[in-house]
Amino acid sequence: MSQALEGRAKALLEDKNFAVVGTLRSDGSVHEVPVWVDVQDGMPTLNTAEGRAWPNNLARDPRVTLTVQNMQNPYEYVSVRGHVAERTREGADEHIDALAKKYTGQDKYPNRQPGEERVIIRVAPEHVHYSGA
Amino acid sequence: MSQALEGRAKALLEDKNFAVVGTLRSDGSVHEVPVWVDVQDGMPTLNTAEGRAWPNNLARDPRVTLTVQNMQNPYEYVSVRGHVAERTREGADEHIDALAKKYTGQDKYPNRQPGEERVIIRVAPEHVHYSGA
Repeated sequence: MSQALEGRAKALLEDKNFAVVGTLRSDGSVHEVPVWVDVQDGMPTLNTAEGRAWPNNLARDPRVTLTVQNMQNPYEYVSVRGHVAERTREGADEHIDALAKKYTGQDKYPNRQPGEERVIIRVAPEHVHYSGA
Repeated sequence: MSQALEGRAKALLEDKNFAVVGTLRSDGSVHEVPVWVDVQDGMPTLNTAEGRAWPNNLARDPRVTLTVQNMQNPYEYVSVRGHVAERTREGADEHIDALAKKYTGQDKYPNRQPGEERVIIRVAPEHVHYSGA
């Protein structure tokens, strides 16, 4: 069962807030990292580079939880638990540029590394917990 | 092996930033929630009420990860992976008042519920990942 993000929960991801992405390490413990995020078709949409810890974790176990706090009012937040619905390199370079634009105002993502392969990860939400201010 | 928090990693927890606490649900998936935090004796120190999801998770599996971003500059953050070193009700009411003072300026925690039993959870860090601005 998937659940689309809407209302304030969606707005929190559309604003310039970060998502703390929680994935499972091979020993079953939790790995967390703050990342940029946006929403496409009601799904939290992330962008990373192949080889990093958290996309490696997701290749092994597709379960993912992400929490987004309102940077202007941290008592408002949404936590989304779900799984990887799609993982693709198609359009991933353009997508990281769009995220750079959103978060930094720059047209091009400034931290691209030589040989880096960007990847889009779309999350199908199974459970959405929103907490208002 | 435990590792004390120090320097900027410690300062991030001493400032009025929130910790996104990641624990393990019974099905092994990740539960996340943003909470208040401080540091005592180099250990991230949390406060919650008995019966909530995440302290229940920790009673079953003491592994915990917490991530603290600098609210003034979210590109600076620390992620701490560790385990519950101590769980105690002793001093927990005074401690939640101290956290309320830190985060809201109020002398008393304003959201105490009737019958609520507060509990302090101290985290022994095993792995500390700090990322500067």
